[in-house]
Amino acid sequence: MTEEESKDLRKKIAELIIVRISGYHEDEQRNYPRWEVNNEELKTLIREGLGGVIILGGSTYELQSRCSELQKLSTKKLLICADVEEGVGQRFHGGTLLPPPMSIGRIYNSNPKKAKSLAEEYGHCIGNEARLNGLNLVLAPICDINNNPENPVINIRAWGSDPLTVSELTCAFHKGIKKEGVLTCAKHFPGHGDTNHDSHLMLPNLKHDLKRLNEIELIPFKSLIESGIDSIMTAHIKLENIDSKNPATLSYTILTELLRNQLNFNGLIVTDALIMEAISKIYGSGEAAVLAIKAGADLILMPEEPFQAIEAIFMAIKKGEISKERIERSILRKQSALQRLSSKELDSRNFQEIRRPGKLLAKEIIRDSLEIQNPGKIGPSSNGINLISVENAINCPFLNRPAPAIVLPKMAGYRSLLIDKNGISPWTGSKNEPLDLDLIGKAPILLQLFLRGNPFDRGMEMQENWINAVIQIQENDLLSGLVIYGSPYLWQKIINITDKNIPIAFSTAQIQEAQTQALRRLIKSEVIRGKNQEASINRFID
Amino acid sequence: MTEEESKDLRKKIAELIIVRISGYHEDEQRNYPRWEVNNEELKTLIREGLGGVIILGGSTYELQSRCSELQKLSTKKLLICADVEEGVGQRFHGGTLLPPPMSIGRIYNSNPKKAKSLAEEYGHCIGNEARLNGLNLVLAPICDINNNPENPVINIRAWGSDPLTVSELTCAFHKGIKKEGVLTCAKHFPGHGDTNHDSHLMLPNLKHDLKRLNEIELIPFKSLIESGIDSIMTAHIKLENIDSKNPATLSYTILTELLRNQLNFNGLIVTDALIMEAISKIYGSGEAAVLAIKAGADLILMPEEPFQAIEAIFMAIKKGEISKERIERSILRKQSALQRLSSKELDSRNFQEIRRPGKLLAKEIIRDSLEIQNPGKIGPSSNGINLISVENAINCPFLNRPAPAIVLPKMAGYRSLLIDKNGISPWTGSKNEPLDLDLIGKAPILLQLFLRGNPFDRGMEMQENWINAVIQIQENDLLSGLVIYGSPYLWQKIINITDKNIPIAFSTAQIQEAQTQALRRLIKSEVIRGKNQEASINRFID
Repeated sequence: MTEEESKDLRKKIAELIIVRISGYHEDEQRNYPRWEVNNEELKTLIREGLGGVIILGGSTYELQSRCSELQKLSTKKLLICADVEEGVGQRFHGGTLLPPPMSIGRIYNSNPKKAKSLAEEYGHCIGNEARLNGLNLVLAPICDINNNPENPVINIRAWGSDPLTVSELTCAFHKGIKKEGVLTCAKHFPGHGDTNHDSHLMLPNLKHDLKRLNEIELIPFKSLIESGIDSIMTAHIKLENIDSKNPATLSYTILTELLRNQLNFNGLIVTDALIMEAISKIYGSGEAAVLAIKAGADLILMPEEPFQAIEAIFMAIKKGEISKERIERSILRKQSALQRLSSKELDSRNFQEIRRPGKLLAKEIIRDSLEIQNPGKIGPSSNGINLISVENAINCPFLNRPAPAIVLPKMAGYRSLLIDKNGISPWTGSKNEPLDLDLIGKAPILLQLFLRGNPFDRGMEMQENWINAVIQIQENDLLSGLVIYGSPYLWQKIINITDKNIPIAFSTAQIQEAQTQALRRLIKSEVIRGKNQEASINRFID
Repeated sequence: MTEEESKDLRKKIAELIIVRISGYHEDEQRNYPRWEVNNEELKTLIREGLGGVIILGGSTYELQSRCSELQKLSTKKLLICADVEEGVGQRFHGGTLLPPPMSIGRIYNSNPKKAKSLAEEYGHCIGNEARLNGLNLVLAPICDINNNPENPVINIRAWGSDPLTVSELTCAFHKGIKKEGVLTCAKHFPGHGDTNHDSHLMLPNLKHDLKRLNEIELIPFKSLIESGIDSIMTAHIKLENIDSKNPATLSYTILTELLRNQLNFNGLIVTDALIMEAISKIYGSGEAAVLAIKAGADLILMPEEPFQAIEAIFMAIKKGEISKERIERSILRKQSALQRLSSKELDSRNFQEIRRPGKLLAKEIIRDSLEIQNPGKIGPSSNGINLISVENAINCPFLNRPAPAIVLPKMAGYRSLLIDKNGISPWTGSKNEPLDLDLIGKAPILLQLFLRGNPFDRGMEMQENWINAVIQIQENDLLSGLVIYGSPYLWQKIINITDKNIPIAFSTAQIQEAQTQALRRLIKSEVIRGKNQEASINRFID
């Protein structure tokens, strides 16, 4: 190879790489500097032919200017992806925040028609905001079937726990999002719903064979392939009865033989982030990228070291382990996806008017999926404690100074006390008296648990703790009320242990609209009369 | 008056009103809904002739589009003000965050020339970013002389504690900011530096007579009037020996006789926010606005109820208590200020290139004002506790996930424990053993106190608590190191009580650059070798 040819080949390889960046413009503003390429590296990568970015953080206003600046820097169109499964607001301030898909899955149980229509609107809303803000590949829908309640990583991100629900709702979502022409991605192939470990931290292992996958996990993927999904993301899970050696992301059997050949998928195969520990703990950065390409992936998402990944693939081609044609085919698939995009972009008549603002959609989904017992039964208190449990109060997306979870209980006389991983622990370590009530205060407690699935394997322990704590608070006759935001599985357990007369509520959503609806229904209306939550913040400093 | 004339007059009055709004575009995103007019009210007010807004919150990208949308809505140019005393980043993400003015005041003590040059750059940096983002009136500089260490509200916002320092540095600041042509505001007339109560909460009362004011408090104001300051903001303080009845904001003696007639100030007199409790606890919304105009104010900032304020002034004119000419004169002053602005805006050649990015300026000011004892003496620990005290971790501007205050101690083996007003209290109530060390853990403690003056009257109590806590931790032989970010007065007290061999540092600034500099100098360099703080976040989830 001449130097010119080498350079050219490296550029082609770079076209298959997607790195993670922050939506904030300044390097110092990055919330995840370890995973987000800085601006200088980003410019170098773009100069060397980078294929795209996955972006998160900052506001939609920052996003717009960041996307247009990046596209100007690049000689060819960049893929700009985002994990906006639950609305553009999930990753960018000011965008719409929607309740998790599982909310609609729960509506499906009683009203499938309504649920499908909501899922379609949901997709349309995300597609619309993605397009208007400069994103062109939305990494959704989740096609995993959450058939394991202890799943730490999929959980309420899934549309349901059975193949039909997930298949119908993801297809409705897809129909909605495609009205806006942005590219889409079904994930995580061949199904990440039945794991009880988090692939961010380790590689889950499943016993399922092909027969089982065909009966359950593959059903939504097949429907979406038929609907013309643009890309499919791989799962970092091992299916030892299908490929005893490699995780799905790096498995020729799964990506090429199953997905490409048997299921006839001709779109883009995208790896899940190679930086996740399921992969990065076992494989080097270059090694993982090479194995993924060999297995059949087209796009390499978030390699730990992007330059190493490019170099390793280059060396594998030089050694004849990967053919140049293999790379060319992936580039062609990418270009063809971008062309579908471009024709849409040029013609705004293609776009259909969005039915209603995302906020109203969110409101309806929450209303229809909210569960409540003993509404209107929380009365005023002179010394009540509004005990709120969150993972991390620093940069918490659903808690700000005037959050309804803080302000509404305050109107009823409950002062807030926050429990999170940064503060002093309220836990004694004992199972019977898990909470140190002397620390918290022996007064009526309104408990609000923001516990969404079991993120990063820590959730199950927290669920256990809180179940025991609820029993303890109840035995001390101090439980005024309880709201769970997030896990339906925790909700099921809590229903079984709380007295029948305790006011309790559940929403899959954690956003402020869910807080408002749950608390306004639980607290006596005389106490929080009128619409003016603002007035409850009486003093300048509160 | 015909209906037409009444409508006209109300529009003229509205031109003197400034309301507070959020920089975020959506009503739900407001952090202070009680004080920030919502979008519907704002549109109505603009239609009815509103003079301007004071804006905070959101990113600079949101600010830009918000400012240009607002100017388009209004038939005449709006004043768009912001309290960006410490950089545009103080109120808008993505703007430069500078150390508090007192940092430069401390440099002045040893190097007045350097300090003046830094103050000029400081002003230039703020003016430049304000102009580029759509602000046209910067509510700075603070001209108060902080001659009371217990001052809860001015404190390190002041440039110094003596007249000469403040006078020289505010004039240098003014010279810098005027290079960018934005309008400026000296505050709080006739001097808010000697109070030990917060006018957000109550009306402070001072005994000073005119002689004393002339000798001390008025000196910076006189210099700035001579330098052509565009506006002056009033103080919500009572000076019973000058006007026994009214606070300065509502005093004819102070605003008209002293400021307008004796000091010959012909620019705009702006009230401080009338919504502050020093005023709003005593006077109704309309009443306060009428009294302020009668006293001599031109612009009414943040009346509690803007529509009531307009109506009350209108009625006062109808009754002959205020003349129409009085209103006309204020409008003329406002228009003349806006004209100075417009000519600047049209001609970009007026602007001088900024000397260096604000970040480098911040770095230098912090370096030059950082105090340190026993540098490099904090070694690694296997079980250390990084005890951080902040007012409120929710939406804390200087703490995010990878903040140096969290990450650097982690590299040395210190896990973070946050104390704030939302969490479980660590305080026992006893003076000798104020901290419950069983809760915190009996292990080496690196203590970081973010305590900036004494905000909202709570600070003094916190200072007392922490001084006693430092003695306690030291007596238990657990004090590995200590950093104070904020109050120089607390620092003075802490120096006196800590053992001479304890590594301690002080910065007036709380921003991440201050955290980096203080901790990198205190912690042994072997422990945090290299520049890669990112690498210390080892796992995907940390």
